[in-house]
Amino acid sequence: MRAPGGEVVITGGLGFIGSHLVDAYLAAGHRVRIIDSNAGAVIDGEDYDADPRCAVVRERVEDYLAAGGDFAGVDRVIHAASYVGPASILSRAGRLGHDIIGSTAPVIEACMNAGTPLCVFSSAEVYGRSGVLDEKDDIVVPTQYNTRIEYAVAKTLAEAMVCNSRRHGLRGIVIRPFNVAGARQSRAGGFVMPTFVQQALAGRPITVFAGGEQIRAFIAAGDLTGFLTGYMDLALQGDEVIINVGNPANAVTIMDLAERVKNLLASPSPIVRVDGRSVHGPHYAEAESFHKIPALRAATGLGWRPRIPLDELILSTADYYRAREDRRAVNAPL
Amino acid sequence: MRAPGGEVVITGGLGFIGSHLVDAYLAAGHRVRIIDSNAGAVIDGEDYDADPRCAVVRERVEDYLAAGGDFAGVDRVIHAASYVGPASILSRAGRLGHDIIGSTAPVIEACMNAGTPLCVFSSAEVYGRSGVLDEKDDIVVPTQYNTRIEYAVAKTLAEAMVCNSRRHGLRGIVIRPFNVAGARQSRAGGFVMPTFVQQALAGRPITVFAGGEQIRAFIAAGDLTGFLTGYMDLALQGDEVIINVGNPANAVTIMDLAERVKNLLASPSPIVRVDGRSVHGPHYAEAESFHKIPALRAATGLGWRPRIPLDELILSTADYYRAREDRRAVNAPL
Ligand SMILES: NC(=O)c1ccc[n+]([C@@H]2O[C@H](COP(=O)([O-])OP(=O)(O)OC[C@H]3O[C@@H](n4cnc5c(N)ncnc54)[C@H](O)[C@@H]3O)[C@@H](O)[C@H]2O)c1
Ligand SMILES: NC(=O)c1ccc[n+]([C@@H]2O[C@H](COP(=O)([O-])OP(=O)(O)OC[C@H]3O[C@@H](n4cnc5c(N)ncnc54)[C@H](O)[C@@H]3O)[C@@H](O)[C@H]2O)c1
Repeated sequence: MRAPGGEVVITGGLGFIGSHLVDAYLAAGHRVRIIDSNAGAVIDGEDYDADPRCAVVRERVEDYLAAGGDFAGVDRVIHAASYVGPASILSRAGRLGHDIIGSTAPVIEACMNAGTPLCVFSSAEVYGRSGVLDEKDDIVVPTQYNTRIEYAVAKTLAEAMVCNSRRHGLRGIVIRPFNVAGARQSRAGGFVMPTFVQQALAGRPITVFAGGEQIRAFIAAGDLTGFLTGYMDLALQGDEVIINVGNPANAVTIMDLAERVKNLLASPSPIVRVDGRSVHGPHYAEAESFHKIPALRAATGLGWRPRIPLDELILSTADYYRAREDRRAVNAPL
Repeated sequence: MRAPGGEVVITGGLGFIGSHLVDAYLAAGHRVRIIDSNAGAVIDGEDYDADPRCAVVRERVEDYLAAGGDFAGVDRVIHAASYVGPASILSRAGRLGHDIIGSTAPVIEACMNAGTPLCVFSSAEVYGRSGVLDEKDDIVVPTQYNTRIEYAVAKTLAEAMVCNSRRHGLRGIVIRPFNVAGARQSRAGGFVMPTFVQQALAGRPITVFAGGEQIRAFIAAGDLTGFLTGYMDLALQGDEVIINVGNPANAVTIMDLAERVKNLLASPSPIVRVDGRSVHGPHYAEAESFHKIPALRAATGLGWRPRIPLDELILSTADYYRAREDRRAVNAPL
């Protein structure tokens, strides 16, 4: 039963973005092999287990490859597996760099061995500063290191490894997502959108960190997956190896986001300013950049455009969490 | 036969800096365990094999630890093992990040398990820009990645891992050496001092790259080892985790260095400007910084001072290479 589009490997396919990718590639006629350690899974994956077009490997991708797994005959590999989220990463302090590099390096190597095209997920966190951020901008790393900076530097190193591996024949690109949101994103990671939406739905205080004046531009997971299903082959032929993916039209201050969520969901929740450290502990850190907006030169140069507006994104996230609990966050206070 | 100072583990102890460290710790009354993969060894290590105060393990440190090696009872670990040098690293493009992180992460973990203090070698390359560089300065990473930047970012990530591991109890510091030089440094790595000295001794043209106006400050290996044997314990008690080690008094343009080497060694060699890529291949890259001079705030705050002047450094390097060949570079054109 060979699907017309061939098999796509998605690491982290039981995570937020990964599961949207699985759905998008299935819808585009592909078979999918999910490799996910369950460390941060937002779904149990039973629907995929039951789908004859899917295979679910519940293992760390580095262990899967070390035990002899390979990507022979695979159409493409999307490496989305990672520890993610300002709160989730805290327990990995000091080890996070090796977590990220130790999973990415064998994926790169296996893709080179099999001749399989690869997309590696980096993050807008690499920029480490404020502004409208272009792929050609320098990266600024403050050396008052914390776990958030360890994450950013590890993603930067993964980018450099992809770029330099192209010299040895890798066909690979890197995408830098800017604040992705949508159904299934867990508030457990410390992400703002599912936190606000779940607080609003429960009538609990909506907790705004760091004053609320910071600006973020949210992109719908569906717009991001559209870049990969529609434009990855073009990107592999082009000159831009590193590609911002975000939606500047959805830029908003965090305080405005809180009000928008409250109003759209007709929630009685009060909006309160709190220090993120009182929620996530003393090691929690805010992002380096006060505002963080993508320049989309590389992606729009290929013809891609993000489409889904912020209100639709809030409403679809709310629809999801009206119908079920946040699987990763069931025991965390709201 | 327990030496008064206890056992010191030196990874990369058959390399340039590592072997100077071995000698310095032996002279200070320690026993030494060398762990070196031989990937870039500048000596064969037979003198150390014959020394009852030394144990030489010829293996990658990550393999040594994975096979059950540990640091129980060890007084301190100095992690100097790395692929190094603008030319040596080129063949590791795309893998270098994992080489560096994949060896450093298990060393950190083993030190945490054994409660052993650790010093990790980073590099002045992390700064990625010109100036008088202080430990508190931001790091600027250009994203036109090449292997040299992969090296710098990997060293940055290793730094972040050490700093963040202190939260889990690691007693660790990082040093950032600025242009170390002296006996045993191989020209095979692409280092300027042993190249100029060997060219001058052989009467071959002294090859100045990139115009020669760039400024570097050279520190003697003996001054660097003096920091570790004399000040590491103080540093472990202090607040500065990252410590520049260099000698700003030895700052010189590369063209002046060429002339100084030629004059001091009374060499007939002509001085010629060449493109580094014509020697080391098309992927060779110059350092990002045009001039690179250490601010020594952290190190001098502990009382340390570098002492060995540039001329003495040139002469001791020449003495070494008058008596023997450059072991790593025997087959490389001078
Ligand atoms: N969510 C965002 O706004 C955002 C922004 C920028 C970048 N990213 C990147 O996008 C990717 C996906 O993020 P997400 O938000 O979906 O996170 P997520 O935590 O929801 O999903 C990540 C998945 O990876 C899995 N995983 C972790 N380590 C693994 C390993 N070694 N082997 C196999 N599976 C492993 C986890 O179990 C989890 O299911 C990550 O690489 C992340 O860095 C996300
Ligand atoms: N030489 C300089 O000017 C300079 C400047 C800044 C930083 N450094 C740092 O100082 C340290 C020592 O540099 P060097 O100039 O002596 O280099 P070197 O190449 O002479 O020595 C490095 C040694 O490490 C060994 N090695 C490499 N990978 C190993 C592994 N996985 N396990 C065990 N051994 C391994 C090599 O065989 C070699 O003997 C490095 O960490 C380097 O990044 C050097």
